[in-house]
Amino acid sequence: MESLEEQYLQSHRQRHTEELMDFLRIPSISMDPQFNLSLREAATFLEEACSRAGLEHVQQVETTGAPLVYADWLHVPGAPTVLVYGHYDVQPPGLPEHWTSPAFTPEIREGRLYARGASDDKGQLFLHLKAVEAVLHLRGCLAFNVKMLIEGEEEIGSPALQGLLRGQSDAKLRDRKNLSELTVGLHNRVDLQADVVLISDTPFLFADQPALCMGVRGLCGLDVEVLGPTLPLHSGGYGGLVQNPIHALATMLASLYTAEGYVAVPGFYDGLFPLAEVESTVLSQLSPAEGDLASQLGVPALFGEPGYSPLERLWARPTLDVNAFCGGDCQDTVRTLIPRSARATITCRLGVGQDPTRIADALWRHLERITPQGVRLQMARLDEARAWAANPQHPVYAHAARALAVGFRKSPTLIRMGGSIPVVSEFVDALSAPVVLLGFGLPTDNIHAEDEHLSMVQFDGGLRTLLHYYQTELPAKSKLGEINDARTPNA
Amino acid sequence: MESLEEQYLQSHRQRHTEELMDFLRIPSISMDPQFNLSLREAATFLEEACSRAGLEHVQQVETTGAPLVYADWLHVPGAPTVLVYGHYDVQPPGLPEHWTSPAFTPEIREGRLYARGASDDKGQLFLHLKAVEAVLHLRGCLAFNVKMLIEGEEEIGSPALQGLLRGQSDAKLRDRKNLSELTVGLHNRVDLQADVVLISDTPFLFADQPALCMGVRGLCGLDVEVLGPTLPLHSGGYGGLVQNPIHALATMLASLYTAEGYVAVPGFYDGLFPLAEVESTVLSQLSPAEGDLASQLGVPALFGEPGYSPLERLWARPTLDVNAFCGGDCQDTVRTLIPRSARATITCRLGVGQDPTRIADALWRHLERITPQGVRLQMARLDEARAWAANPQHPVYAHAARALAVGFRKSPTLIRMGGSIPVVSEFVDALSAPVVLLGFGLPTDNIHAEDEHLSMVQFDGGLRTLLHYYQTELPAKSKLGEINDARTPNA
Repeated sequence: MESLEEQYLQSHRQRHTEELMDFLRIPSISMDPQFNLSLREAATFLEEACSRAGLEHVQQVETTGAPLVYADWLHVPGAPTVLVYGHYDVQPPGLPEHWTSPAFTPEIREGRLYARGASDDKGQLFLHLKAVEAVLHLRGCLAFNVKMLIEGEEEIGSPALQGLLRGQSDAKLRDRKNLSELTVGLHNRVDLQADVVLISDTPFLFADQPALCMGVRGLCGLDVEVLGPTLPLHSGGYGGLVQNPIHALATMLASLYTAEGYVAVPGFYDGLFPLAEVESTVLSQLSPAEGDLASQLGVPALFGEPGYSPLERLWARPTLDVNAFCGGDCQDTVRTLIPRSARATITCRLGVGQDPTRIADALWRHLERITPQGVRLQMARLDEARAWAANPQHPVYAHAARALAVGFRKSPTLIRMGGSIPVVSEFVDALSAPVVLLGFGLPTDNIHAEDEHLSMVQFDGGLRTLLHYYQTELPAKSKLGEINDARTPNA
Repeated sequence: MESLEEQYLQSHRQRHTEELMDFLRIPSISMDPQFNLSLREAATFLEEACSRAGLEHVQQVETTGAPLVYADWLHVPGAPTVLVYGHYDVQPPGLPEHWTSPAFTPEIREGRLYARGASDDKGQLFLHLKAVEAVLHLRGCLAFNVKMLIEGEEEIGSPALQGLLRGQSDAKLRDRKNLSELTVGLHNRVDLQADVVLISDTPFLFADQPALCMGVRGLCGLDVEVLGPTLPLHSGGYGGLVQNPIHALATMLASLYTAEGYVAVPGFYDGLFPLAEVESTVLSQLSPAEGDLASQLGVPALFGEPGYSPLERLWARPTLDVNAFCGGDCQDTVRTLIPRSARATITCRLGVGQDPTRIADALWRHLERITPQGVRLQMARLDEARAWAANPQHPVYAHAARALAVGFRKSPTLIRMGGSIPVVSEFVDALSAPVVLLGFGLPTDNIHAEDEHLSMVQFDGGLRTLLHYYQTELPAKSKLGEINDARTPNA
């Protein structure tokens, strides 16, 4: 990178850090209504930061929940438009006593900036604002048109943005020829049409190895409750007479996996696009040794679907996990009660090609079919998202990879992640544009947990990457052409 | 019953009720050390009540925990001695908002006395003190010798009493010929030797039908923990790589029962004395209709070991229940974590002839054998007790049945209970004396739960029963002879 940029970043580093710390001080927790004012405060902070960066049409778009922040810079006629997405809401802080410094009192220790949201996603989205600000300051213009869309409900499933994108998607279906004229919105009207969607909300696979995320898994799940007797029963007074809801649910959950590690729900693997052999081989080579990973995680041995490397199991294969099981009172070993109910949360990570609704249906039917006699079953669906994988041949990925190579002074690896970013497939559906997951987190950032942080190495490298990104022309709109996404196998 | 007794009970009913309410006001909770002073207060209350009743040698026997209260009346030389056992400690009150009136503010509503301990066991043991008081007041003497032993640790497994009885038991084994000279104790020395043990701490099977409890089931159990990764893992970041502790434990628990309802743990039925065919038939006739019982309990159908009537399953067959299962956070359907551990409490009710330690060993070995790969297992034993069944031919039961018939004006049924009273087999072992379970509770008393109460019908009937009991001669000591207990099948 040219020394002009380096010099700029050096001289503004203190200010950048302080501004991010101001942003991180706002407890913009979307899961708890008592922080609604903090969500607005964060949106207002972003409006000011967008304006200072030189973005235009800066506005808060009112929704039924937290406002969206929109801004754009559209001064390269004929050039492609990049829609940058991020979120300013954060997870609840968890247990205060597990934080070394308070969650909303940012502090830099040993090269890491600690605060809730430092990595997910305030810190990462903030880098885009500072990159645009720097490029416009140094060069007066960006290499392409930019739209920024920052939401405040990502941690609760993006209800408003989803509605907005689905409106765009439905309109597109109605008139596929008139994409560029689409405008959507709730109170305000915002045109989200773009040629590329750019998101920084993912981690590298390892520190010191830049990575571009080329796929995410889908998601579906059920909340399951097994109901037994109307009241808890003493096992001395009733043991032997009734089906125990805990036992019934345990038996049902046991039937979800075979002993070998396959998911035993009929239809669970339906729709899955298998990886090409070459991709399997790459993942197998990239996979850490099973023994190393097992001892790192503190388990006697890894466990999973036979015949696949750890990274293929994690990134490409559908998996099922029981996240919680609650019945009776584990603190009470004296009262020997048969509880009136038992409850479990089951979520599935899905592979490319799978329909989350159909997989949830299959799980639902399976659980209904195997419910033992003597209890009743109640279920509710959880959030659903489709898996997505990029077409590695698409030129937007080469463009992003070059920026990463400049920013981190090392060629990036192409990786995927085992988690889900529901908004990715929503963007693909709504805008028919390729999505670039150019994230700067590390797997050790403790996102969603206590002591969340962002490494300052990632902060600096990310900003350098984005300075390059916003200054480098994208291929012409015509070359960005048709996109390949999760719906196209092995494209 | 003679009108003299009726008249006495009528004219002292108000005072009896008020004294019991004073006793119930003391929050003598043994499970919580902050109530230690209340335990002493309850013991002191009992000392005074024993003295007022005319009992002698009244004393508190210090133990490592709550004091025992001892008193006796030994003025019929050559007659048998009855050891009356009860407990003054109570369960914690549970949720205050589920009590109609506060747990330790006794209140009579619609013929029921509501308070923690009203039925279990303060109310029932109190009847013995008032019966002795009445008989000594009216007649000047009892029909046999009496020792009272009231403990304050029943709800936490009777550690001190158990130690004391096992000391007696060991001494007996050392010198079987010298039983009458045995004295035991910790700081004080108390001679517990007796010809009959009398306990009022059990319920009738139905209201309006007096019942004598002729058997209790045994108990054993394990606290089981399955340990997975060192930290909770995000299912997006690790789903497909590790054995999920919840799933592992659910699979282990599923293996404990066959689909038909048999316990599938090898050795689980070992040692069991089957009921005689005639006993099975009686239980089958006494059993409520399965459909009625199911709708009363609010379940679609009953469930249990095939081939046995509900009462035989409940009273005579060993059963296994998972009382609690906890893993992950059931309130959290968003974070999709794989928890680091899952825990369950398993308890077994055992039949006559079974050794609780051997059954717990069998369960332990089974769980070890079926622990899936990729997790570690930790277990701890819970309290153990042997089952017990009376020999219905023994004359002490006819004596008790006559008193019940007088007290409740109806012939009693012989029943058992599915629960466990660990101290029963401890008394049998230590004293070689038959145990009489002459309880006055009802199954609807809500013992251990909120709104515990004692029906005043049971209060009055129980007191009438005991007035008759303490005035009626027992068979001569020589006729009480050898006892038959749980160790003797179908005796």
